[in-house]
Amino acid sequence: MSEDFRIDWDRERRTGTAEAVFSAGKSPEQIAAILAAAEGRRLLLTHLTADALRLLPAELKARLDHDPLSQTAVFGPAQAVAPARVCIVAAGTSDLRVAREAARTLAFHGEGAHLVADVGVAGLWRLMAEIEAIRRHAVIIAVAGMEGALFSVLAGLVEAPVIAVPTSVGYGVAEGGRAALASALSACAPGIATVNIDNGFGAACLALRMLRLANPPPCPASA
Amino acid sequence: MSEDFRIDWDRERRTGTAEAVFSAGKSPEQIAAILAAAEGRRLLLTHLTADALRLLPAELKARLDHDPLSQTAVFGPAQAVAPARVCIVAAGTSDLRVAREAARTLAFHGEGAHLVADVGVAGLWRLMAEIEAIRRHAVIIAVAGMEGALFSVLAGLVEAPVIAVPTSVGYGVAEGGRAALASALSACAPGIATVNIDNGFGAACLALRMLRLANPPPCPASA
Amino acid sequence: MSEDFRIDWDRERRTGTAEAVFSAGKSPEQIAAILAAAEGRRLLLTHLTADALRLLPAELKARLDHDPLSQTAVFGPAQAVAPARVCIVAAGTSDLRVAREAARTLAFHGEGAHLVADVGVAGLWRLMAEIEAIRRHAVIIAVAGMEGALFSVLAGLVEAPVIAVPTSVGYGVAEGGRAALASALSACAPGIATVNIDNGFGAACLALRMLRLANPPPCPASA
Amino acid sequence: MSEDFRIDWDRERRTGTAEAVFSAGKSPEQIAAILAAAEGRRLLLTHLTADALRLLPAELKARLDHDPLSQTAVFGPAQAVAPARVCIVAAGTSDLRVAREAARTLAFHGEGAHLVADVGVAGLWRLMAEIEAIRRHAVIIAVAGMEGALFSVLAGLVEAPVIAVPTSVGYGVAEGGRAALASALSACAPGIATVNIDNGFGAACLALRMLRLANPPPCPASA
Amino acid sequence: MSEDFRIDWDRERRTGTAEAVFSAGKSPEQIAAILAAAEGRRLLLTHLTADALRLLPAELKARLDHDPLSQTAVFGPAQAVAPARVCIVAAGTSDLRVAREAARTLAFHGEGAHLVADVGVAGLWRLMAEIEAIRRHAVIIAVAGMEGALFSVLAGLVEAPVIAVPTSVGYGVAEGGRAALASALSACAPGIATVNIDNGFGAACLALRMLRLANPPPCPASA
Amino acid sequence: MSEDFRIDWDRERRTGTAEAVFSAGKSPEQIAAILAAAEGRRLLLTHLTADALRLLPAELKARLDHDPLSQTAVFGPAQAVAPARVCIVAAGTSDLRVAREAARTLAFHGEGAHLVADVGVAGLWRLMAEIEAIRRHAVIIAVAGMEGALFSVLAGLVEAPVIAVPTSVGYGVAEGGRAALASALSACAPGIATVNIDNGFGAACLALRMLRLANPPPCPASA
Amino acid sequence: MSEDFRIDWDRERRTGTAEAVFSAGKSPEQIAAILAAAEGRRLLLTHLTADALRLLPAELKARLDHDPLSQTAVFGPAQAVAPARVCIVAAGTSDLRVAREAARTLAFHGEGAHLVADVGVAGLWRLMAEIEAIRRHAVIIAVAGMEGALFSVLAGLVEAPVIAVPTSVGYGVAEGGRAALASALSACAPGIATVNIDNGFGAACLALRMLRLANPPPCPASA
Amino acid sequence: MSEDFRIDWDRERRTGTAEAVFSAGKSPEQIAAILAAAEGRRLLLTHLTADALRLLPAELKARLDHDPLSQTAVFGPAQAVAPARVCIVAAGTSDLRVAREAARTLAFHGEGAHLVADVGVAGLWRLMAEIEAIRRHAVIIAVAGMEGALFSVLAGLVEAPVIAVPTSVGYGVAEGGRAALASALSACAPGIATVNIDNGFGAACLALRMLRLANPPPCPASA
Repeated sequence: MSEDFRIDWDRERRTGTAEAVFSAGKSPEQIAAILAAAEGRRLLLTHLTADALRLLPAELKARLDHDPLSQTAVFGPAQAVAPARVCIVAAGTSDLRVAREAARTLAFHGEGAHLVADVGVAGLWRLMAEIEAIRRHAVIIAVAGMEGALFSVLAGLVEAPVIAVPTSVGYGVAEGGRAALASALSACAPGIATVNIDNGFGAACLALRMLRLANPPPCPASA
Repeated sequence: MSEDFRIDWDRERRTGTAEAVFSAGKSPEQIAAILAAAEGRRLLLTHLTADALRLLPAELKARLDHDPLSQTAVFGPAQAVAPARVCIVAAGTSDLRVAREAARTLAFHGEGAHLVADVGVAGLWRLMAEIEAIRRHAVIIAVAGMEGALFSVLAGLVEAPVIAVPTSVGYGVAEGGRAALASALSACAPGIATVNIDNGFGAACLALRMLRLANPPPCPASA
Repeated sequence: MSEDFRIDWDRERRTGTAEAVFSAGKSPEQIAAILAAAEGRRLLLTHLTADALRLLPAELKARLDHDPLSQTAVFGPAQAVAPARVCIVAAGTSDLRVAREAARTLAFHGEGAHLVADVGVAGLWRLMAEIEAIRRHAVIIAVAGMEGALFSVLAGLVEAPVIAVPTSVGYGVAEGGRAALASALSACAPGIATVNIDNGFGAACLALRMLRLANPPPCPASA
Repeated sequence: MSEDFRIDWDRERRTGTAEAVFSAGKSPEQIAAILAAAEGRRLLLTHLTADALRLLPAELKARLDHDPLSQTAVFGPAQAVAPARVCIVAAGTSDLRVAREAARTLAFHGEGAHLVADVGVAGLWRLMAEIEAIRRHAVIIAVAGMEGALFSVLAGLVEAPVIAVPTSVGYGVAEGGRAALASALSACAPGIATVNIDNGFGAACLALRMLRLANPPPCPASA
Repeated sequence: MSEDFRIDWDRERRTGTAEAVFSAGKSPEQIAAILAAAEGRRLLLTHLTADALRLLPAELKARLDHDPLSQTAVFGPAQAVAPARVCIVAAGTSDLRVAREAARTLAFHGEGAHLVADVGVAGLWRLMAEIEAIRRHAVIIAVAGMEGALFSVLAGLVEAPVIAVPTSVGYGVAEGGRAALASALSACAPGIATVNIDNGFGAACLALRMLRLANPPPCPASA
Repeated sequence: MSEDFRIDWDRERRTGTAEAVFSAGKSPEQIAAILAAAEGRRLLLTHLTADALRLLPAELKARLDHDPLSQTAVFGPAQAVAPARVCIVAAGTSDLRVAREAARTLAFHGEGAHLVADVGVAGLWRLMAEIEAIRRHAVIIAVAGMEGALFSVLAGLVEAPVIAVPTSVGYGVAEGGRAALASALSACAPGIATVNIDNGFGAACLALRMLRLANPPPCPASA
Repeated sequence: MSEDFRIDWDRERRTGTAEAVFSAGKSPEQIAAILAAAEGRRLLLTHLTADALRLLPAELKARLDHDPLSQTAVFGPAQAVAPARVCIVAAGTSDLRVAREAARTLAFHGEGAHLVADVGVAGLWRLMAEIEAIRRHAVIIAVAGMEGALFSVLAGLVEAPVIAVPTSVGYGVAEGGRAALASALSACAPGIATVNIDNGFGAACLALRMLRLANPPPCPASA
Repeated sequence: MSEDFRIDWDRERRTGTAEAVFSAGKSPEQIAAILAAAEGRRLLLTHLTADALRLLPAELKARLDHDPLSQTAVFGPAQAVAPARVCIVAAGTSDLRVAREAARTLAFHGEGAHLVADVGVAGLWRLMAEIEAIRRHAVIIAVAGMEGALFSVLAGLVEAPVIAVPTSVGYGVAEGGRAALASALSACAPGIATVNIDNGFGAACLALRMLRLANPPPCPASA
């Protein structure tokens, strides 16, 4: 049988974001082989559960900076992070695991992020209290489950591009994130970029592409 | 064959709202026969298009107060309308035909309604400018298509029951009103009563049941 | 990182119902931090499983009144409950966990509830035997899975507003509650307020908003 | 090209119901050719609109007994009809076109039908007033759109087999008959036979198979 | 709280089939209480897993005749079974658990059943080899998952009513039984009665209603 | 603006089938421009309605061989057709328009086809009477709507590859062809190749690729 | 009744894109009233069909620059357009109406666009021939129906943000654009921003927000 | 009860592929009985998990060649495999379990396969580097999850028939393989044969039917 994987090492140069290892559905042997092939290059792993981590060889585990909430891991040395040009706004506490996946992906590429949490529109004052801080960023990533009303409200208040990440938080008709996804796509406020449900990684990659448009950084950075 | 219809004349006494004639799918002969059976009693007809109206006998047409936008008609004498205890909030201009069906149903039962139009959340200031007037009503009917973010925002701002009417306004994933319906049902703000898509009639009937709880009227009435 | 949560302590004053803690998807640390922030204020927790309860610090667990069937918990002192103005009607025994979530939410806000169980319409006499008792209440909450025929039948027999809570009880086409939800929304009897599948909490919050319309209570209370 | 159709003239002997001509999507030439091939045998045509009828040769049209409401036509001589062993119960006036398709199919096979119309469960007394008459029949066909609550209620009241025909009457979540179909399939009352949406023809064919069980015995020798 | 259940003991007299206890979602205490209320009357329990059985009091367990494959149990004395008037045809070996639920429900009511297994239409000769034996029965129950082609083929070969039970056997687009259900409802062969996915119990109840049409038994019974 | 189209003239050499002009959604001007660019090369047009044809310039219309049933047209000189190696089996008369699209596409590429019509499995003898003739072909294209049981039955009877074309013939749950598509994909008989609903063109292209396996060898040198 | 509309004239200053008039579902009177309220300000109208245009007063029509393909109109004086920083890539000729809506929206805001048409991936050389020209732009808008494979391929070849606009071009499982939408959201190439089906307007608004990142800096002071 | 299974030993002669044992949902006793009935004949088992394997009698287990990744097992002696005429192309590493099911099914029938892995279109160069090797095969099986763009791209580059196997790899809108399935069916490149989600077995059976068209083998075999 031919080899099982071909890392696209050239992708970062070609598209601005490095290839990441989607770890779900890969055996420990396959993940270990991929890390072995890295040969000093840094790698980001997504969808790597704590259980999957445990099955890796100790020597490799030691070189992984793993975050259980977001199920991401960085292989290789840490890297400095620039002042935040991206603001990540999460509607509820349960959306934080997706928000963190976005933040970790940005950090892997050297970009900081400012996180604003639990500002769902049922208590509008919570969002309004933070809106000035949010506006100071070049790109906004909004993370919300349930009915995803945050996307429309936010896009009507800022001029930066808003990347909507629907999450699978919710039950009944919201189960699996379909309601939030539909809200993002059909929002009455134009200028929203939607990514797949729970796809914090994709939102960060999109933000990175946007940030390349702005060089030097467009704003003095948030606190 | 047995008779085609049995009007439930007793329904108003039993449930607080009169039976209405859902005119879609009924032949002109069937509608005429129903009106003939009314014998002086008043009747509300819904889903009666201008085309269907034209096919009715002239004598009956003359006794119908028909509104083409909402496709409703009242058969029988006009009735006085009390000061508005219900506020109908419509997100966009295209939602007005459903909002009007609700208002006409309320009026048929003697209840006035205050209408606030085009206050979608993409321009939040439009809703905030009216929020105090909205709050003065006992019951709120919110009418919105597309992503239906209005339902959550509104329910977080008022203490009255909010009846959400998703509309079929929209395209793509919002086509047919499914996105707005899902938003209403999975809203993060509790206390929302959802009715079927485009069901302005049902929203008004529900409001009438609620109003029977409040006697005398709970608010000084809106302008 | 900024703080993970912002309790909307003001919500009860603003909307008539207190914010509750949706516990699914929150870590024990997050729940503990929220309870610590309560500082003597009472809190309702929903979707708190027995397993999640076990992971909380003993000191906090002792202050929680947890009900495993409805997966609700009350943090803080017990409160007196008024005579029932709400009647909760459950179609089957399996729907009781949702009915109980509604009852517990009402009790948290000081409202009693009268429960009528196992009155599915396949044996209509069971419902008819209770209908007079049901009619004596200001608001009806109907809880049903499978085909949800109870909603239409009930709304045709009473004049109070009927809040329909579809449940996920059922299999095949009824799996997850979609059939019951569709029945509630498309019922031929008008005046039904639908909430999300299994959303006993939301039904109670809606009932609370309705009850604020009626003061003093409209009925002498049920047995 | 080979011939376009092969009438299954033997089907009635083999399965108890004659083959019918599903006219939708067939050209006037194809329908005329089929009728020409009948050579004196009787034929039932379904889904034959008034427009399609107009395009047929006058000579054939004259031999067709066409009913515009149900869009059915009988080709060939009329036939006597036996006293009704089947009761057709229609929830609303708009469901009559489907009920009529069932009645016409039964009549084509020599079976009468008793029709009870407009007995939706929102006004339960209407159904109860007819229930004794309904119970006197060997087979019940129930026709209902919207939420289809009639199926469960009826099946709980009679001992005959109940054939549920969901109709496409309704809008919003009921559009196209999906809500009524789901109700029929997930009804809490057992003993319901469901057929496809708007399939009055199929319901009648199923009733015919059931009636053969009654008189005379259906299996004298199945060689 | 009021009592949790109301057994409809009268249902058998009213509708021809006894009420059964749908055990899924009921606690051991609730099931025990129901059995205690039986007081010598026989009861059928469905959806009772081996795990749920284990949690019942030993004394009750001893009086239950439990079948793990079909997850059914009979409470009370065994009953004689009449010669088979019903033939149950299962497309594949994996459909047997649903076929057995139907057979056990028939037996509970005193009716035997003849089972023909693994006759899917991919090897048509298997079905043809049994077709004469199948034809000797008054009612046919066909059980099939995946694409459910068996329903159409069978209904075209016999004159008895065919009750189609789609099963959740399958994966991909067939997952959960939706493909088989759609096939049953849209079959080109008329005269098929469809029940919910995996609903062997409902199929048997429907067969019982049909058999009451034929008295004395219509056929000498199968081998 | 750049030019609106780029014909892939090289596609036939590269993939074995020529590019066709999908005419739906194209303006008469665009179609005319494409034909003008053909410059003597032959072209197949699909989804070209009689109405769209009428809007083309007379000079071009004269050079089009249009078939209204299948809505296909051939631009350029006629071509000889080889003896049929493909057999097209259509379940019903209404499926013929799709079957014809496949036959016309094959003919455009010089391949004949043998058509067998109206052999739905409700009358199995019709299919069995033709099965020997069907078996004599290298590739089978099966065209069926409604429940699509033909696909499974046929694939169990022949050894040639079976290409399943689900059609949108049907109503209720079969509407739009979804039931037939699900049947094709989940058929219990392996070896079925499924194409999109109503896609007679695609089925023919697939058959052409298969036929190249037969004569002469398809890969003399794939440089 | 209160006024029917409230133009959000301030939106451009607040969010970077002007409010547009979604004309579907609005009466000629409502559109005329909105234009009258513009008082010299420029307005973009979307979803304005040629039929709707005809019903407007001649005086207003004369001031509208209407494009029938994209169903857009500009009210007010023309505006100069800057050199293209956006590249719009359309997979097929039928996707051009959506591509044009995007181009017209950009032009309304003063931004030019470079259009590359008919480069679907079935003939990959067509896309590769243009890829260098595409790469020279700051933002890419990709417009595709059917299976939407263009989105993934393109995003893997460029480093600019790719805005995916699924279109409703297609039939069968692609009908209405759902297949293309799913492809955009689940693409294996990260960095794709998805908007609603057929939403060329929204894609342009999103591109405008991105372009503000480039020149001049977007956040000199967001007070 | 009659016997539970009927192996279609004749199927290979009739259709070119042997019957396989779909092991999901079968008890260890049933599987053991089937193997016992084989009496020296070879059998392929699919969907046989490692857990199910463990429950089989040791004597049978010893005669099974089980592959845990693809969950397939071969019962009986090994068989020589011919040089690869089929090329299996897998988009990602996670798709390998399905690719292996196809390869094992081919090998059971004596056909070799050449596997090309991890060539998703996000890095197009990976596919292009292998395209010449792929082209040397008579039949291509393409295995892809997520958005399934590989199917269209590949079918535009080769002239062999392409069998598309969508996999359930993915999350959000791609969950369960629906997005990849829709892409395969609506691909803009004609000549694609689609099978059910994750159905590597079916893809191989279809390839086997195609290969019978080519005899002797059409190409000198790949490396």
